[in-house]
Amino acid sequence: MEKREKLYEGKAKIIYSTDDPDLIIQYFKDDATAFNALKKGTIESKGIMNNKISEVLFKHLEKNGIPTHFVERLDDREMVNKKLDIILVEVVARNIVAGSLAKRLGKEEGEVLPMPIVEYYYKDDALGDPMINMDHIRALNLATDEEMDKIRGYALKVNDLLRKFFDDRGIDLVDYKLEFGRHNGEILLGDEICPDTCRLWDKATHEKMDKDRFRQDLGKIEEAYAEVCRRVCEE
Amino acid sequence: MEKREKLYEGKAKIIYSTDDPDLIIQYFKDDATAFNALKKGTIESKGIMNNKISEVLFKHLEKNGIPTHFVERLDDREMVNKKLDIILVEVVARNIVAGSLAKRLGKEEGEVLPMPIVEYYYKDDALGDPMINMDHIRALNLATDEEMDKIRGYALKVNDLLRKFFDDRGIDLVDYKLEFGRHNGEILLGDEICPDTCRLWDKATHEKMDKDRFRQDLGKIEEAYAEVCRRVCEE
Repeated sequence: MEKREKLYEGKAKIIYSTDDPDLIIQYFKDDATAFNALKKGTIESKGIMNNKISEVLFKHLEKNGIPTHFVERLDDREMVNKKLDIILVEVVARNIVAGSLAKRLGKEEGEVLPMPIVEYYYKDDALGDPMINMDHIRALNLATDEEMDKIRGYALKVNDLLRKFFDDRGIDLVDYKLEFGRHNGEILLGDEICPDTCRLWDKATHEKMDKDRFRQDLGKIEEAYAEVCRRVCEE
Repeated sequence: MEKREKLYEGKAKIIYSTDDPDLIIQYFKDDATAFNALKKGTIESKGIMNNKISEVLFKHLEKNGIPTHFVERLDDREMVNKKLDIILVEVVARNIVAGSLAKRLGKEEGEVLPMPIVEYYYKDDALGDPMINMDHIRALNLATDEEMDKIRGYALKVNDLLRKFFDDRGIDLVDYKLEFGRHNGEILLGDEICPDTCRLWDKATHEKMDKDRFRQDLGKIEEAYAEVCRRVCEE
Protein backbone atom coordinates (compact mmCIF):
# COMPACT_ATOMS: atom_id res chain seq x y z
CA MET A 1 0.00 0.00 0.00
CA GLU A 2 1.34 3.38 -1.02
CA LYS A 3 0.74 6.78 0.55
CA ARG A 4 -0.66 9.36 -1.89
CA GLU A 5 -1.85 12.96 -1.49
CA LYS A 6 -3.00 14.81 1.61
CA LEU A 7 -6.81 14.74 1.76
CA TYR A 8 -7.33 16.79 4.90
CA GLU A 9 -5.33 18.39 7.67
CA GLY A 10 -7.10 18.84 10.99
CA LYS A 11 -6.08 20.18 14.36
CA ALA A 12 -4.41 16.99 15.55
CA LYS A 13 -4.06 14.81 12.47
CA ILE A 14 -3.53 14.58 8.75
CA ILE A 15 -5.38 12.20 6.44
CA TYR A 16 -3.66 10.85 3.30
CA SER A 17 -5.16 8.85 0.47
CA THR A 18 -3.48 5.61 -0.58
CA ASP A 19 -3.35 3.57 -3.77
CA ASP A 20 -6.25 1.55 -2.33
CA PRO A 21 -9.41 3.70 -2.70
CA ASP A 22 -10.90 1.94 0.37
CA LEU A 23 -8.03 2.88 2.69
CA ILE A 24 -6.53 6.08 4.11
CA ILE A 25 -3.54 6.81 6.32
CA GLN A 26 -4.15 8.78 9.50
CA TYR A 27 -1.05 10.70 10.70
CA PHE A 28 -1.04 11.81 14.38
CA LYS A 29 0.46 15.26 15.04
CA ASP A 30 1.77 16.69 18.33
CA ASP A 31 -0.33 19.86 17.86
CA ALA A 32 -2.96 20.50 20.47
CA THR A 33 -5.82 22.98 20.37
CA ALA A 34 -8.62 23.80 22.78
CA PHE A 35 -11.66 26.08 23.04
CA ASN A 36 -12.45 25.71 19.33
CA ALA A 37 -8.78 26.43 18.43
CA LEU A 38 -8.52 29.69 20.44
CA LYS A 39 -5.73 28.02 22.45
CA LYS A 40 -2.90 26.34 20.56
CA GLY A 41 0.17 24.43 21.63
CA THR A 42 2.25 21.31 21.25
CA ILE A 43 2.38 18.24 23.45
CA GLU A 44 5.65 16.45 22.80
CA SER A 45 5.26 12.93 21.40
CA LYS A 46 1.47 13.17 21.76
CA GLY A 47 0.99 11.85 18.22
CA ILE A 48 3.07 8.77 18.94
CA MET A 49 1.21 8.04 22.18
CA ASN A 50 -2.27 8.70 20.75
CA ASN A 51 -1.53 6.43 17.79
CA LYS A 52 -0.57 3.59 20.14
CA ILE A 53 -3.45 4.16 22.55
CA SER A 54 -5.98 4.34 19.70
CA GLU A 55 -4.59 1.11 18.21
CA VAL A 56 -5.07 -0.79 21.47
CA LEU A 57 -8.57 0.63 22.06
CA PHE A 58 -9.79 0.05 18.49
CA LYS A 59 -8.52 -3.56 18.63
CA HIS A 60 -10.23 -4.09 21.99
CA LEU A 61 -13.52 -2.72 20.64
CA GLU A 62 -13.32 -4.71 17.36
CA LYS A 63 -12.70 -7.90 19.35
CA ASN A 64 -15.85 -7.15 21.32
CA GLY A 65 -18.23 -6.53 18.44
CA ILE A 66 -17.84 -2.83 17.59
CA PRO A 67 -17.04 -2.33 13.88
CA THR A 68 -14.28 0.30 13.57
CA HIS A 69 -12.26 1.87 10.76
CA PHE A 70 -8.97 0.55 12.21
CA VAL A 71 -6.88 -1.67 9.94
CA GLU A 72 -3.33 -1.56 11.31
CA ARG A 73 -0.73 0.71 12.87
CA LEU A 74 1.98 1.40 10.29
CA ASP A 75 4.63 3.13 12.39
CA ASP A 76 5.02 5.61 15.25
CA ARG A 77 2.66 8.25 13.89
CA GLU A 78 0.66 6.51 11.18
CA MET A 79 -2.33 4.21 11.17
CA VAL A 80 -4.17 2.63 8.22
CA ASN A 81 -7.95 3.08 8.36
CA LYS A 82 -10.88 2.22 6.17
CA LYS A 83 -12.00 5.35 4.34
CA LEU A 84 -15.16 6.78 5.86
CA ASP A 85 -17.89 9.11 4.73
CA ILE A 86 -17.88 10.88 8.11
CA ILE A 87 -21.27 11.54 9.74
CA LEU A 88 -21.28 15.16 10.92
CA VAL A 89 -22.54 14.27 14.40
CA GLU A 90 -20.04 14.15 17.24
CA VAL A 91 -21.21 11.69 19.86
CA VAL A 92 -20.27 12.47 23.45
CA ALA A 93 -20.86 9.87 26.17
CA ARG A 94 -20.56 10.78 29.83
CA ASN A 95 -20.30 8.80 33.06
CA ILE A 96 -19.18 11.53 35.45
CA VAL A 97 -20.06 15.25 35.38
CA ALA A 98 -17.27 17.40 33.90
CA GLY A 99 -16.68 20.15 31.35
CA SER A 100 -19.70 21.61 29.57
CA LEU A 101 -22.13 19.27 31.38
CA ALA A 102 -21.21 20.78 34.77
CA LYS A 103 -22.08 24.22 33.39
CA ARG A 104 -25.20 23.07 31.50
CA LEU A 105 -26.81 21.32 34.49
CA GLY A 106 -25.28 23.41 37.29
CA LYS A 107 -23.66 20.34 38.81
CA GLU A 108 -20.31 19.83 40.52
CA GLU A 109 -17.53 18.31 38.42
CA GLY A 110 -17.02 14.75 39.71
CA GLU A 111 -20.64 13.81 40.38
CA VAL A 112 -21.21 10.26 39.15
CA LEU A 113 -24.21 10.12 36.80
CA PRO A 114 -27.00 7.63 37.63
CA MET A 115 -26.77 6.39 34.01
CA PRO A 116 -24.61 7.32 31.01
CA ILE A 117 -25.62 10.46 29.12
CA VAL A 118 -25.18 10.52 25.33
CA GLU A 119 -25.13 13.92 23.61
CA TYR A 120 -24.96 14.84 19.94
CA TYR A 121 -23.06 17.83 18.59
CA TYR A 122 -23.17 19.20 15.05
CA LYS A 123 -19.59 18.84 13.75
CA ASP A 124 -19.11 22.40 12.49
CA ASP A 125 -16.14 24.43 13.71
CA ALA A 126 -17.58 27.73 12.45
CA LEU A 127 -20.67 27.20 14.63
CA GLY A 128 -18.59 25.97 17.60
CA ASP A 129 -20.00 22.42 17.43
CA PRO A 130 -23.45 23.21 18.91
CA MET A 131 -25.43 20.58 20.78
CA ILE A 132 -28.27 19.15 18.69
CA ASN A 133 -30.98 16.54 19.06
CA MET A 134 -32.54 13.92 16.80
CA ASP A 135 -34.92 16.45 15.24
CA HIS A 136 -32.02 18.72 14.23
CA ILE A 137 -30.23 15.67 12.80
CA ARG A 138 -33.34 14.88 10.72
CA ALA A 139 -33.87 18.47 9.57
CA LEU A 140 -30.19 18.84 8.59
CA ASN A 141 -30.31 15.39 7.00
CA LEU A 142 -27.08 14.40 8.80
CA ALA A 143 -28.03 10.75 9.26
CA THR A 144 -31.07 8.50 9.07
CA ASP A 145 -32.99 7.38 12.16
CA GLU A 146 -31.74 3.84 11.50
CA GLU A 147 -28.12 5.04 11.41
CA MET A 148 -28.55 7.04 14.62
CA ASP A 149 -30.19 4.08 16.39
CA LYS A 150 -27.13 2.02 15.46
CA ILE A 151 -24.76 4.80 16.53
CA ARG A 152 -26.44 5.26 19.90
CA GLY A 153 -26.32 1.50 20.47
CA TYR A 154 -22.62 1.42 19.60
CA ALA A 155 -21.90 4.42 21.82
CA LEU A 156 -23.49 2.72 24.84
CA LYS A 157 -21.70 -0.57 24.13
CA VAL A 158 -18.38 1.25 23.65
CA ASN A 159 -19.06 2.91 26.98
CA ASP A 160 -19.50 -0.42 28.79
CA LEU A 161 -16.36 -1.83 27.18
CA LEU A 162 -14.08 1.20 27.68
CA ARG A 163 -15.26 1.92 31.21
CA LYS A 164 -14.33 -1.64 32.22
CA PHE A 165 -11.06 -1.48 30.25
CA PHE A 166 -9.94 1.75 31.93
CA ASP A 167 -11.26 0.72 35.33
CA ASP A 168 -9.04 -2.39 35.18
CA ARG A 169 -6.11 0.00 34.68
CA GLY A 170 -6.96 2.31 37.59
CA ILE A 171 -8.59 5.00 35.44
CA ASP A 172 -12.09 6.50 35.54
CA LEU A 173 -13.53 7.08 32.08
CA VAL A 174 -15.29 10.41 32.74
CA ASP A 175 -16.51 11.25 29.22
CA TYR A 176 -15.34 11.08 25.61
CA LYS A 177 -16.18 11.97 22.03
CA LEU A 178 -16.75 9.46 19.25
CA GLU A 179 -17.15 9.93 15.52
CA PHE A 180 -18.78 7.50 13.15
CA GLY A 181 -18.83 7.15 9.38
CA ARG A 182 -20.23 5.13 6.52
CA HIS A 183 -18.10 2.56 4.68
CA ASN A 184 -19.67 0.28 2.04
CA GLY A 185 -23.10 0.61 3.63
CA GLU A 186 -21.84 -0.12 7.14
CA ILE A 187 -21.53 2.26 10.11
CA LEU A 188 -17.98 2.16 11.52
CA LEU A 189 -16.45 3.87 14.54
CA GLY A 190 -13.82 6.30 13.25
CA ASP A 191 -11.46 9.08 14.36
CA GLU A 192 -9.22 8.27 17.35
CA ILE A 193 -9.74 7.36 21.02
CA CYS A 194 -7.08 8.87 23.24
CA PRO A 195 -6.48 11.47 25.98
CA ASP A 196 -7.28 14.19 23.40
CA THR A 197 -10.82 12.87 23.02
CA CYS A 198 -11.48 11.31 26.46
CA ARG A 199 -11.51 12.68 30.00
CA LEU A 200 -9.55 10.19 32.10
CA TRP A 201 -9.02 10.54 35.84
CA ASP A 202 -6.72 8.45 38.00
CA LYS A 203 -9.01 6.41 40.25
CA ALA A 204 -6.76 6.69 43.30
CA THR A 205 -5.62 10.33 43.14
CA HIS A 206 -8.44 11.78 40.92
CA GLU A 207 -5.68 13.50 38.92
CA LYS A 208 -6.60 14.46 35.37
CA MET A 209 -4.73 12.37 32.77
CA ASP A 210 -6.06 14.02 29.59
CA LYS A 211 -6.21 17.17 27.50
CA ASP A 212 -7.80 19.11 30.38
CA ARG A 213 -4.18 19.40 31.66
CA PHE A 214 -3.50 21.43 28.50
CA ARG A 215 -6.84 23.31 28.53
CA GLN A 216 -6.43 24.30 32.18
CA ASP A 217 -2.62 24.74 32.22
CA LEU A 218 -2.16 22.07 34.87
CA GLY A 219 1.36 21.12 33.77
CA LYS A 220 2.85 17.60 33.45
CA ILE A 221 0.89 17.07 30.25
CA GLU A 222 3.37 14.76 28.51
CA GLU A 223 3.76 12.75 31.73
CA ALA A 224 0.00 12.23 31.98
CA TYR A 225 -0.29 11.06 28.36
CA ALA A 226 2.72 8.77 28.85
CA GLU A 227 1.15 7.23 31.95
CA VAL A 228 -2.13 6.57 30.11
CA CYS A 229 -0.11 5.07 27.25
CA ARG A 230 1.82 2.85 29.66
CA ARG A 231 -1.31 1.55 31.39
CA VAL A 232 -3.31 1.07 28.17
CA CYS A 233 -0.51 -0.63 26.23
CA GLU A 234 0.78 -3.02 28.90
CA GLU A 235 -0.40 -6.60 28.48
CA MET B 1 -64.66 29.32 44.14
CA GLU B 2 -62.64 31.74 46.22
CA LYS B 3 -59.20 33.21 45.58
CA ARG B 4 -56.71 32.53 48.38
CA GLU B 5 -52.99 33.25 48.80
CA LYS B 6 -50.34 33.96 46.18
CA LEU B 7 -48.44 30.75 45.42
CA TYR B 8 -45.94 32.11 42.92
CA GLU B 9 -45.16 35.29 41.05
CA GLY B 10 -43.35 34.90 37.74
CA LYS B 11 -42.19 37.29 35.08
CA ALA B 12 -45.55 37.60 33.33
CA LYS B 13 -48.06 36.07 35.72
CA ILE B 14 -49.12 35.37 39.28
CA ILE B 15 -50.58 32.09 40.51
CA TYR B 16 -53.09 32.07 43.40
CA SER B 17 -54.48 29.12 45.27
CA THR B 18 -58.26 28.78 45.64
CA ASP B 19 -60.56 27.09 48.14
CA ASP B 20 -60.56 24.11 45.76
CA PRO B 21 -57.21 22.29 46.19
CA ASP B 22 -57.46 21.11 42.57
CA LEU B 23 -57.73 24.59 41.07
CA ILE B 24 -55.56 27.71 40.85
CA ILE B 25 -56.11 31.18 39.44
CA GLN B 26 -53.62 32.44 36.86
CA TYR B 27 -53.36 36.26 36.74
CA PHE B 28 -51.84 37.79 33.57
CA LYS B 29 -49.57 40.81 34.13
CA ASP B 30 -48.49 43.45 31.61
CA ASP B 31 -44.83 43.00 32.59
CA ALA B 32 -42.52 41.77 29.86
CA THR B 33 -38.98 40.44 30.19
CA ALA B 34 -36.49 39.11 27.69
CA PHE B 35 -32.98 37.65 27.56
CA ASN B 36 -33.49 35.80 30.85
CA ALA B 37 -34.88 38.97 32.51
CA LEU B 38 -31.93 41.21 31.54
CA LYS B 39 -34.43 43.37 29.64
CA LYS B 40 -37.60 44.48 31.41
CA GLY B 41 -40.59 46.53 30.39
CA THR B 42 -44.35 46.77 30.20
CA ILE B 43 -46.65 46.09 27.29
CA GLU B 44 -49.94 47.86 27.94
CA SER B 45 -52.95 45.55 28.22
CA LYS B 46 -50.77 42.55 27.33
CA GLY B 47 -52.21 40.58 30.26
CA ILE B 48 -55.76 41.14 29.06
CA MET B 49 -54.92 40.11 25.49
CA ASN B 50 -52.83 37.07 26.46
CA ASN B 51 -55.61 35.87 28.77
CA LYS B 52 -58.13 36.02 25.91
CA ILE B 53 -55.79 34.51 23.32
CA SER B 54 -54.83 31.67 25.68
CA GLU B 55 -58.49 30.96 26.41
CA VAL B 56 -59.34 30.59 22.73
CA LEU B 57 -56.28 28.43 22.00
CA PHE B 58 -56.73 26.15 25.03
CA LYS B 59 -60.40 25.63 24.10
CA HIS B 60 -59.44 24.87 20.51
CA LEU B 61 -56.84 22.33 21.63
CA GLU B 62 -59.16 20.69 24.22
CA LYS B 63 -61.86 20.33 21.56
CA ASN B 64 -59.32 18.53 19.40
CA GLY B 65 -58.05 16.00 21.91
CA ILE B 66 -55.25 17.78 23.81
CA PRO B 67 -55.84 17.68 27.58
CA THR B 68 -55.04 21.12 29.05
CA HIS B 69 -55.16 22.76 32.45
CA PHE B 70 -57.71 25.34 31.25
CA VAL B 71 -61.02 25.48 33.14
CA GLU B 72 -62.49 28.93 32.43
CA ARG B 73 -61.64 32.59 31.99
CA LEU B 74 -62.84 34.51 35.07
CA ASP B 75 -62.37 38.08 34.00
CA ASP B 76 -60.00 40.34 32.00
CA ARG B 77 -56.81 39.18 33.66
CA GLU B 78 -57.70 35.94 35.42
CA MET B 79 -58.14 32.37 34.30
CA VAL B 80 -59.01 29.28 36.38
CA ASN B 81 -56.71 26.32 35.77
CA LYS B 82 -56.30 22.82 37.14
CA LYS B 83 -53.38 22.80 39.56
CA LEU B 84 -50.32 21.19 37.99
CA ASP B 85 -47.17 19.61 39.27
CA ILE B 86 -45.13 21.37 36.57
CA ILE B 87 -42.59 19.24 34.66
CA LEU B 88 -39.32 21.21 34.53
CA VAL B 89 -38.88 20.68 30.79
CA GLU B 90 -39.81 23.54 28.47
CA VAL B 91 -40.87 22.14 25.12
CA VAL B 92 -40.10 24.28 22.07
CA ALA B 93 -41.58 23.35 18.71
CA ARG B 94 -40.38 25.02 15.53
CA ASN B 95 -41.66 25.24 11.96
CA ILE B 96 -39.54 28.09 10.62
CA VAL B 97 -35.95 29.00 11.56
CA ALA B 98 -35.78 31.94 14.02
CA GLY B 99 -34.15 32.99 17.28
CA SER B 100 -31.68 30.59 18.88
CA LEU B 101 -32.13 27.98 16.14
CA ALA B 102 -30.77 30.37 13.49
CA LYS B 103 -27.65 30.82 15.63
CA ARG B 104 -27.35 27.14 16.58
CA LEU B 105 -27.53 25.80 13.02
CA GLY B 106 -26.07 28.80 11.18
CA LYS B 107 -29.26 29.21 9.15
CA GLU B 108 -31.12 32.29 7.93
CA GLU B 109 -34.15 33.37 9.93
CA GLY B 110 -37.22 32.54 7.82
CA GLU B 111 -36.07 29.23 6.34
CA VAL B 112 -38.97 26.80 6.45
CA LEU B 113 -37.95 23.55 8.15
CA PRO B 114 -38.52 20.29 6.23
CA MET B 115 -40.28 18.93 9.36
CA PRO B 116 -41.06 20.34 12.81
CA ILE B 117 -38.20 20.41 15.31
CA VAL B 118 -38.97 19.76 18.97
CA GLU B 119 -36.40 20.89 21.54
CA TYR B 120 -36.29 20.42 25.31
CA TYR B 121 -34.94 23.02 27.73
CA TYR B 122 -34.29 22.59 31.43
CA LYS B 123 -36.62 25.10 33.15
CA ASP B 124 -34.04 26.76 35.39
CA ASP B 125 -33.63 30.54 35.26
CA ALA B 126 -30.31 30.47 37.14
CA LEU B 127 -28.85 28.21 34.43
CA GLY B 128 -30.46 30.23 31.62
CA ASP B 129 -32.78 27.37 30.57
CA PRO B 130 -30.13 25.24 28.84
CA MET B 131 -31.05 22.86 26.02
CA ILE B 132 -31.17 19.24 27.15
CA ASN B 133 -31.95 15.85 25.64
CA MET B 134 -33.75 12.71 26.81
CA ASP B 135 -30.64 11.43 28.62
CA HIS B 136 -30.35 14.64 30.66
CA ILE B 137 -34.07 14.39 31.47
CA ARG B 138 -33.49 10.82 32.71
CA ALA B 139 -30.36 11.69 34.71
CA LEU B 140 -32.07 14.69 36.33
CA ASN B 141 -35.20 12.58 36.86
CA LEU B 142 -37.36 15.36 35.41
CA ALA B 143 -39.90 13.02 33.82
CA THR B 144 -40.30 9.37 32.89
CA ASP B 145 -39.80 8.09 29.34
CA GLU B 146 -43.53 7.37 29.20
CA GLU B 147 -44.36 10.95 30.20
CA MET B 148 -41.93 12.36 27.63
CA ASP B 149 -43.34 10.12 24.88
CA LYS B 150 -46.78 11.51 25.68
CA ILE B 151 -45.43 15.09 25.80
CA ARG B 152 -43.66 14.80 22.47
CA GLY B 153 -46.83 13.35 20.92
CA TYR B 154 -48.91 16.21 22.31
CA ALA B 155 -46.36 18.80 21.16
CA LEU B 156 -46.52 17.50 17.58
CA LYS B 157 -50.33 17.32 17.61
CA VAL B 158 -50.53 20.84 19.11
CA ASN B 159 -48.26 21.93 16.30
CA ASP B 160 -50.56 20.55 13.59
CA LEU B 161 -53.59 22.12 15.23
CA LEU B 162 -52.10 25.57 15.94
CA ARG B 163 -50.33 25.87 12.61
CA LYS B 164 -53.65 25.33 10.84
CA PHE B 165 -55.48 27.61 13.27
CA PHE B 166 -53.04 30.49 12.74
CA ASP B 167 -52.71 29.84 9.01
CA ASP B 168 -56.49 30.27 8.66
CA ARG B 169 -56.02 33.70 10.26
CA GLY B 170 -53.18 34.82 8.00
CA ILE B 171 -50.42 34.09 10.52
CA ASP B 172 -47.36 31.83 10.27
CA LEU B 173 -46.69 29.92 13.50
CA VAL B 174 -42.88 30.11 13.50
CA ASP B 175 -42.11 28.50 16.88
CA TYR B 176 -43.43 28.42 20.44
CA LYS B 177 -42.84 27.14 23.94
CA LEU B 178 -45.12 24.74 25.79
CA GLU B 179 -45.11 23.59 29.40
CA PHE B 180 -46.73 20.45 30.72
CA GLY B 181 -47.59 19.21 34.20
CA ARG B 182 -49.07 16.32 36.12
CA HIS B 183 -52.63 16.45 37.48
CA ASN B 184 -54.18 13.37 39.10
CA GLY B 185 -51.90 11.05 37.14
CA GLU B 186 -52.59 12.74 33.83
CA ILE B 187 -50.26 14.92 31.71
CA LEU B 188 -51.92 18.26 30.90
CA LEU B 189 -50.75 21.17 28.76
CA GLY B 190 -50.21 24.13 31.09
CA ASP B 191 -48.89 27.71 31.15
CA GLU B 192 -50.23 30.06 28.47
CA ILE B 193 -50.15 30.21 24.67
CA CYS B 194 -49.87 33.77 23.38
CA PRO B 195 -47.52 36.20 21.59
CA ASP B 196 -45.23 36.06 24.66
CA THR B 197 -44.62 32.34 24.10
CA CYS B 198 -45.06 32.02 20.31
CA ARG B 199 -43.31 33.61 17.33
CA LEU B 200 -46.07 34.71 14.97
CA TRP B 201 -45.45 36.35 11.59
CA ASP B 202 -48.04 37.93 9.35
CA LYS B 203 -48.22 35.70 6.27
CA ALA B 204 -48.64 38.57 3.83
CA THR B 205 -46.17 41.14 5.16
CA HIS B 206 -43.88 38.81 7.20
CA GLU B 207 -44.12 41.36 10.02
CA LYS B 208 -43.43 40.05 13.51
CA MET B 209 -46.56 39.96 15.69
CA ASP B 210 -45.01 38.70 18.95
CA LYS B 211 -42.58 39.43 21.79
CA ASP B 212 -39.69 39.78 19.33
CA ARG B 213 -41.05 43.32 18.76
CA PHE B 214 -40.18 43.95 22.43
CA ARG B 215 -36.90 41.98 22.39
CA GLN B 216 -35.69 43.78 19.27
CA ASP B 217 -37.24 47.22 19.96
CA LEU B 218 -39.30 47.12 16.78
CA GLY B 219 -42.08 49.37 18.12
CA LYS B 220 -45.85 48.95 17.70
CA ILE B 221 -45.82 46.16 20.27
CA GLU B 222 -49.32 46.75 21.69
CA GLU B 223 -50.69 47.06 18.14
CA ALA B 224 -49.20 43.68 17.16
CA TYR B 225 -50.62 41.90 20.23
CA ALA B 226 -54.01 43.56 19.60
CA GLU B 227 -54.01 42.39 16.00
CA VAL B 228 -53.20 38.81 17.03
CA CYS B 229 -55.97 39.04 19.65
CA ARG B 230 -58.44 40.34 17.06
CA ARG B 231 -57.66 37.56 14.57
CA VAL B 232 -57.58 34.78 17.18
CA CYS B 233 -60.75 35.83 19.00
CA GLU B 234 -63.00 36.57 16.01
CA GLU B 235 -65.51 33.87 15.19
